[in-house]
Amino acid sequence: LAAKAGAVGALIRSVGTGAYRLAHTGAMAYEDATPKIPFAAVSAEDADLLHRLLAGGKQAVNVRMKMGCEKLPDQPSSNVVGEIPGTELPSEIVLLAAHLDSWDLGTGAIDDGAGCAIMLEAARLIRAAGGARRTIRVVLFMNEEQGTSGGRAYTERHRAEMDKHVAAIEADEGGARPLGFSLVGDEPALGMLRAITAPLETIRAQAVTQAHFAGADITGLQVSGVPSIGLSNDMTNYFDWHHTAADTVDKLDREELALSVAAVTVVAQGLADAKHTLPRTPAASRELPSWAR
Amino acid sequence: LAAKAGAVGALIRSVGTGAYRLAHTGAMAYEDATPKIPFAAVSAEDADLLHRLLAGGKQAVNVRMKMGCEKLPDQPSSNVVGEIPGTELPSEIVLLAAHLDSWDLGTGAIDDGAGCAIMLEAARLIRAAGGARRTIRVVLFMNEEQGTSGGRAYTERHRAEMDKHVAAIEADEGGARPLGFSLVGDEPALGMLRAITAPLETIRAQAVTQAHFAGADITGLQVSGVPSIGLSNDMTNYFDWHHTAADTVDKLDREELALSVAAVTVVAQGLADAKHTLPRTPAASRELPSWAR
Repeated sequence: LAAKAGAVGALIRSVGTGAYRLAHTGAMAYEDATPKIPFAAVSAEDADLLHRLLAGGKQAVNVRMKMGCEKLPDQPSSNVVGEIPGTELPSEIVLLAAHLDSWDLGTGAIDDGAGCAIMLEAARLIRAAGGARRTIRVVLFMNEEQGTSGGRAYTERHRAEMDKHVAAIEADEGGARPLGFSLVGDEPALGMLRAITAPLETIRAQAVTQAHFAGADITGLQVSGVPSIGLSNDMTNYFDWHHTAADTVDKLDREELALSVAAVTVVAQGLADAKHTLPRTPAASRELPSWAR
Repeated sequence: LAAKAGAVGALIRSVGTGAYRLAHTGAMAYEDATPKIPFAAVSAEDADLLHRLLAGGKQAVNVRMKMGCEKLPDQPSSNVVGEIPGTELPSEIVLLAAHLDSWDLGTGAIDDGAGCAIMLEAARLIRAAGGARRTIRVVLFMNEEQGTSGGRAYTERHRAEMDKHVAAIEADEGGARPLGFSLVGDEPALGMLRAITAPLETIRAQAVTQAHFAGADITGLQVSGVPSIGLSNDMTNYFDWHHTAADTVDKLDREELALSVAAVTVVAQGLADAKHTLPRTPAASRELPSWAR
């Protein structure tokens, strides 16, 4: 829009919640037909400064943009997949999703190292307890951040067995304490999931909420009809660090991660052992959101 | 010490308290006789990473130091001085001190823009109320950060009138709420200052504590015998931002600054109007601390 209006560059105020002059960064996209102009995020403090200078009566504030980033061609990479075969119904799958890649500034501890750790540990606990009736498949997706191509590739490759995916659960809300689960669905699916999460009341993680979206990596599964569930975490501090250089492993708390592991383990095993599987995603929730098209 | 032991460079873990991967920086000095090696602060997160790599069994971790800083020759600059002549004893001075310069990464809002604002506004209030018996002199010192040369120059230039300085008060602890005052002295000076701060009980800023040091800019005054007082602020969050790029004006709270202004105004006016001046700095506190020599 800025380029169409004749701008030679554009700045956005960071949407992060930290007060440490860090530019919270995120994805942007060009429309094919418009000029490609430089676009950058500035910290909230620096955005405030620009506003103060303008409010002080300046007609214009000169900003020099010196940027080193560039867009490089795609390169081959891989999702990482492992599974615990089901003891009775091995062709039916409960998929546990997180993503391996991270935004470039930090090391990706909360986005999404935490999710990978939670899913791997939940699967380990289920295997240690003798497995489940259905297959538990952990998929650590590649390239969530730059367009979810890992999720798309998985959906394409496993197109023929979409009906065998009885549920997909994604963990991509950081490492703070779990609050419950979101489900793309309505009744009776919501009630069925509530029955499974009921034991999580002891850690106050039993809440089941209705959602239009359960996780970026499993969007392709969701629109293919796979019942899609998101682990909900306390995100109070998430955007203090998300997509900044400060997304590092010290932000994770071992005890809080353990609560998320417990929550996912209960739900994954519950779904994998259940007599009745969840109803498929409602038709109204099978359309791709605009950003994922 | 590192250079003497043969090091080609040295890193220090940042002592800041923020968890945002910011390197808290500070002064360093070389001994004349030893090789000058590069020295840098790394964020706590990066220091943790180095420790984890070493704890994981690595014999050594390679670090590439790419630094752009250099030490340039001193240049002329100025303290900024203004005063409200005393109505009865104009040759006697209560000095209000803060420093104009700041560390280079941020804009110096908490260190020491806040102090400058507090002292200017306290002086403005005293003038608006008709002034005081003695002269109120505000000195915004230059170059506190790189060796307090502004403070040294003031002491040298005003050597002949040190006895006329009845007190110096420094504000250099940021902009958070005031907790009281520190005084380099003992009884009866402490009790005399407590009598002046008593009305500040209404804002819980009446505490008077004994100190060996009241402020970097007024160290020269202190060792010359001038009764030296420091405004004490709540520093709980001070080292989250101090000497980082995040020391910006949004960190200041108007209401908390106003409380500091009130506290300084009461003490400055109280000392300027007092019948008896405070006893001079005790002999034991007239030696320069090692860092200030």
